[in-house]
Parts: sequence; C-alpha cells; structure tokens
Amino acid sequence: MARIFSGIQPSGELHIGNYLGAVKNWVQLQETHPGALFCVVDYHAITGAYDPAVLRARRWGMAKSLLAAGIDPAKCALFMQSDVPEHTELSWIFTTLTPLGDLERQTQFKDKSSKVESIPAGLLMYPVLQSADILLYRADSVPVGEDQIQHLELARDTARKWNAKFGQEYFPEPKPLLTPTRRIMGLDGQSKMSKSLGNTIGLMETDDEIWAKLRPAMTDPQRVRKTDVGRPEVCNIFQLHKAFSSAETVAHVDAQCRTAGWGCMDCKKVLQEGMVQELTPIRRRAEMLDTEPQRVLDALASGAETARGIARETMREVRGYMGLDAVTIPTDSPA
Amino acid sequence: MARIFSGIQPSGELHIGNYLGAVKNWVQLQETHPGALFCVVDYHAITGAYDPAVLRARRWGMAKSLLAAGIDPAKCALFMQSDVPEHTELSWIFTTLTPLGDLERQTQFKDKSSKVESIPAGLLMYPVLQSADILLYRADSVPVGEDQIQHLELARDTARKWNAKFGQEYFPEPKPLLTPTRRIMGLDGQSKMSKSLGNTIGLMETDDEIWAKLRPAMTDPQRVRKTDVGRPEVCNIFQLHKAFSSAETVAHVDAQCRTAGWGCMDCKKVLQEGMVQELTPIRRRAEMLDTEPQRVLDALASGAETARGIARETMREVRGYMGLDAVTIPTDSPA
Repeated sequence: MARIFSGIQPSGELHIGNYLGAVKNWVQLQETHPGALFCVVDYHAITGAYDPAVLRARRWGMAKSLLAAGIDPAKCALFMQSDVPEHTELSWIFTTLTPLGDLERQTQFKDKSSKVESIPAGLLMYPVLQSADILLYRADSVPVGEDQIQHLELARDTARKWNAKFGQEYFPEPKPLLTPTRRIMGLDGQSKMSKSLGNTIGLMETDDEIWAKLRPAMTDPQRVRKTDVGRPEVCNIFQLHKAFSSAETVAHVDAQCRTAGWGCMDCKKVLQEGMVQELTPIRRRAEMLDTEPQRVLDALASGAETARGIARETMREVRGYMGLDAVTIPTDSPA
Repeated sequence: MARIFSGIQPSGELHIGNYLGAVKNWVQLQETHPGALFCVVDYHAITGAYDPAVLRARRWGMAKSLLAAGIDPAKCALFMQSDVPEHTELSWIFTTLTPLGDLERQTQFKDKSSKVESIPAGLLMYPVLQSADILLYRADSVPVGEDQIQHLELARDTARKWNAKFGQEYFPEPKPLLTPTRRIMGLDGQSKMSKSLGNTIGLMETDDEIWAKLRPAMTDPQRVRKTDVGRPEVCNIFQLHKAFSSAETVAHVDAQCRTAGWGCMDCKKVLQEGMVQELTPIRRRAEMLDTEPQRVLDALASGAETARGIARETMREVRGYMGLDAVTIPTDSPA
C-alpha cells in the first residue's frame, strides 16, 4: 500500500480554491490510503515577512477547517510540521547532497527571487525542506498540483542521490498524484483564487455570504446583455459548476448558457444551491469545532504522535547509514 | 558570567595543531567559565564525500582525545552535535532570515566553491548552521581562530536580525575570544598542520614516535650546515618551543639558534623533552579511557543532556516569539 504525504500552508481558514485544489482530494484519499499523513507546513510559512500573531491564528484556522472539511484523525495523521523537528534535521542532511545549481534552476525560485531586492536563503532552500517533508515518512505518493511537479522531481533526485551514497533502496522515489481538479480561478476570473487577492469564497461562509460574493463574480466578459449567448469554456462560474453541481446540471447549464436561455444570475443561483449543499455540512462541523475546540488540539496531538513515531524511526535509520548514529564503544576497543 | 560555546570537527584523535590551536584553550576556559559548551560538530562533517565507518571512528577518536586532553565533563558540557537536533531546527529558522548574498560573500565559500565542479548547497549554508550552533545556547563568547572571524560576524548579524524582527534582545551578539596560540604549521613548515596533509604529531603519540617525527621536521631552510646561524622567527620548531617550552628555555633556544651554538638536532631534543612533559599525562588519560571506554559514553550522555536542556528551552522561547509555539485554543474562541 502506497504511503501518502501532502502538505498545506497555514493560510488560515480554507477557501473553495484550496478545498477543491487539494483538500477535497485528501478527504477521498484518506479512505483509500489508510495512514496518510497531512501536514500543516508552518516552517514553510516563515520564509517571508509575517506577523507571529497572524501566523498563530492561521495555523489554528487551517487545522480547524481541515477537520471541518472532512479530514478524519481516525483515518490519517493531521499534524503541525513544527511539532516534528526531524523535518529540519533531514533537510540539513539533504542540503549537503543537493547541488546549488539544481536549486537555482527551480522555476519558483527564479520567479520569486526576481521580484525582491534581497533574496533570503529560505527562498532558495525551501524545496530541500519540502523533499525532507516527504521523504521523512518515506512516502511514495504525493498529491500535488501541477505547480509542484518540479519540486517533487527534486525530491526524487534527492532520494536517488541519498540511496546511491548511503542506503541502496532506503528512500522510495515519491510519485506525483495529480489532483483531479484543476487550479481554481478567483471570483475576478483573472488570477488564481487566493486569500491575499481577496477573490475567494471561504469554506465556512453562510448561504447569504456565498451569494453576496457570487452575484458580482466575473463571467464570460463578452456576454454583456442577457440576450448575448455565453461561452462556458471561458466562464469561471461554469468551472465552479463542474466542481459543485451534478453532471446533469452541468450539461443543462452549458446548454442554457450557449443559447442565452439563462442569464448569468439564473446560472449563479443554481451554482449557489450546489455550493450550499456541499458546504453546509462543512460549516456545521466548523461550528461544532468552535464549540469543542479541544477536538482540534486532540487531532493535532494524535497526528503529531503518529508522525513523530515514523520520523524518529526514519532518522534513526538514516543516521545509522550515515555514521551519525548514537555513539557506541568501538568493537576494536581494548575494553 | 559569559557563556562559552565552541565546536570542533570530528576529525579523529587530536594532533598538536588542533590541541594548541583550540583545545588547550578550552581546558583553561572550563576553569574560568563554568558551564561552557564544547561540541563535536558531526553535522558539519558530512558536507563533502566521506565514509560513514570512518566518520563513526573519528567521532569516537575526537571525543576520547578531548577528554584525554583535559576536558572535564564535571566542569563543562562535551557533546555530539547530532544528539541535539535543535541545531538544525534553529538553522532552518536562520536560513529564512539570511540574505543569499551574505552567504555568497563568505571567503571560505568563495575559496572552496572555486575548487569543485558541482557546489553542494551545504557549502553555502554551513555558516548558517554554525550561527545556530552558537545562538542555540545564547552563547556570548566563542573561542575561535582567526579563520572563523567572518563566520562569527554572520552569527552576530543573524542575532541582530532575529532580535529586530521578533524578540528585541533575546539573542546576545556573540563575541570572538581569539585563541592565544596562533595557527600551528605542519612539520613540513609549509601548510597548516592537518591530518589530511600527514604533517602532524598526534596528541597520543609515544616519546619515540614524537622523536621520529621531529627529527626530519623542517627548520629554517637557509640553515644548511650546523655552523650556519639560524632565524628563529622563520623556524617552525621555534614556534613549537613557544608552545611547549618554558619562557627561559625559549630565550635560550633563541640565542643558541642565532649564534649557531646549537644545531637543529640539539634544539629538537630540547623541544621533545617539553612535548613529552606536556603530552605524557594526556597519553596516560587516553590509555585509561581505552580501558574504560564507558567513561567516554557517560561524558557524552551527560553533556548531551545539559545541551538539550538549554536547546529545548531556547527553541520553546524562539518558537513562542515567532508564532510557531505549541497550538492552543485561541482566546477569542467561543468555547
């Protein structure tokens, strides 16, 4: 059975973008892959400027909303990265194996470093920590979006390098498990849905809040009047229908849009119904967790215990292969 | 009272070069600075190619010879870096704060990276781990040789940066405590004394072994015949006299050399006597440790326990300041 690991930034409460882009898939994977590990990667959240109080609140918001979204601590390990310091220990080991050039060639490094005046070393090194995140659990399958394929390739390289140097087949080469849902665009229809751009719908928003955001959301920009026909393939609302409505409804929406049978408001009303149906149980669970927040702490504690157990065993073995194991009396000692 | 931290590579048994250049000073400092921390930095020993079995043997050899040289586990903490994984945890935190340019400007990085085809990231990043080594114990004084002054400056920068961002005056800016003895040249008189160059005298060598190495050792190259006068200021044997002989003997040697009163063999015989006097008790302790190797393990275990206690407290506080502390229920929670 493949072991699954995946991580998510502690960006606060989930929105439908990271829910559809990652977490909904995790909720399904925990059924088919018992013992999956899902990690809130707070050590990755400090590579830029940030406010500690905000980070603290966002770690809580993310943990709570993962549980609300259906992550079940009885089926998988949900934990905070910083509760397992072995991530950084393995990361240092991988740092010694990784050629600088391989890191400088990462597309995300080139993009991000071109936008800042002083480049923090963390921007160069975080894919090494990511490799450690995955390989610490000897995971062989990693649910990722397309933007993470290159970093996963680095983790595969690292596994191969370490194995060749120290331990033959110790680390598996983790394979990407591409998330079925494509990247979700924001309500502006322009950019990826992202909290920092203010173009999201939160996973715990009420029916009215959802409608207040859907109503003005961007559709096909060429459909100005209700009588203009629309092009579902360029409309972001149609993409959301594909995520939240039944196949029948999606086909119907497609036809109504192309023939101008429905106006955009009609179409959005139907989308709202689909969203409310999927999100209401999530919001109810979130409300329950607000009343019983100890459940969040219990889930994280049990997840961390499971993760630490695996991580410590990996580090014990890795250090053994590398000559960094607990010091013992040499066997050729006169004693 | 200033807290002292210093590290040494696990290069196997000490030779008189690293004894005079560092460890003899540590033995004195443990008297004046109770609670000093001396660390065998095995996580720094993996940045190049190496053999795990050799590293294992060298960690043992270094630990044993530090104790033989006079490091007293009742007065200081002697420990293996990899027994305290918090070093790598703090190192990751500092990685996020350190500008890449500051690392690329380190003289040792420029020297070493120009000599290899593929530059491992560890070569760039190890001064960050060094900063973590020191600041993890909030050390304010670091006995170093001149070649480490630039790295210590980086640690001071890092302390300032972290303090400015998160914790005002939490980390002290560690000051260098320059080792009184200057760099010891090898017996070839050409390069720094170093095991890899085969130009050392081991700290545990017998009187005969010492003589066998001193006899052919390089002196003033212009003194070809016994009747030529010598120049103590360019003679490596004279430097060793300054380390091992009394002030009176040093003055006498100086005069005898300049007047060709002594030949080089006479001079070396007197040096050997001084060395034997200083090194015999060290060799005796090493022999005792060979008979009772459990003492080495006990010293490392007690040192690691002391170091871990400080390291965990530092990380608890550091994570608290950074919003990475143990997750708790938010106070504005409805519960």
